[in-house]
Amino acid sequence: MAQSSATDFTIRPIGRVESPLASAADAPRQGDEGAPDAYLILDSDVQAGLDGIAADDEIIVLTWLHQANRSTLTVHPRGDLSRPEQGVFTTRSASRPNPIGLHRVRVLGIDGQRLHVSSLEAIDGTPIVDLKPVLGSIEER
Amino acid sequence: MAQSSATDFTIRPIGRVESPLASAADAPRQGDEGAPDAYLILDSDVQAGLDGIAADDEIIVLTWLHQANRSTLTVHPRGDLSRPEQGVFTTRSASRPNPIGLHRVRVLGIDGQRLHVSSLEAIDGTPIVDLKPVLGSIEER
Repeated sequence: MAQSSATDFTIRPIGRVESPLASAADAPRQGDEGAPDAYLILDSDVQAGLDGIAADDEIIVLTWLHQANRSTLTVHPRGDLSRPEQGVFTTRSASRPNPIGLHRVRVLGIDGQRLHVSSLEAIDGTPIVDLKPVLGSIEER
Repeated sequence: MAQSSATDFTIRPIGRVESPLASAADAPRQGDEGAPDAYLILDSDVQAGLDGIAADDEIIVLTWLHQANRSTLTVHPRGDLSRPEQGVFTTRSASRPNPIGLHRVRVLGIDGQRLHVSSLEAIDGTPIVDLKPVLGSIEER
């Protein structure tokens, strides 16, 4: 029997992406490959957690890539069949055991619980699970 | 009633951290603030996902900070009471609605499903939920 690390945990989304990208087929592979600007619509019950976010901040958005295949362990990088399969943990493939998306974006504006952000490759409706600041140098913390 | 984004998701850990850090009180706030080297012990049922990881790779480790308080929305940055409270999404506080830890480390060595990595601030026993490559420039992908 396969060994596994006992306890599971529950992710409760804190909001969702509003984007002109309707499906994964439309989405570029990474934000810096031509992804459109988008909105992060946060739930009202976590709005206090946004206090201090301002336009021009660079932030990391964690999403749950809800259409991913969680049993995939190897893929052709970038879906390119001419490249040999590699372990999913060496790629940014959405399909992986825990399909958490990691996106570095710039805040263009904020209006209550709506954040306007640059260049996000997540599709419309993608659940948001966390936001974090990009860390500067140790002296700036 | 608070608006919330309906569906929950289940995180199934893929391994755990083995570290000399026994408790959060011992741990530095970030990996580059003096954190020790550690081991990532991956579960045998995801080992195929590691194919292609090699010594000297820089990777991003996502963990589940299992001791965090998930109802915290504002904190004094770095626990410094002289600094005004800010929203948790502007900090790297472990306490937040979905306590996912984000750690950039270097692979020192790999032996089957055991990865030796540099400077990790997660404590012994912390569940690992994902590994991702650090992305290079577009030309290198």
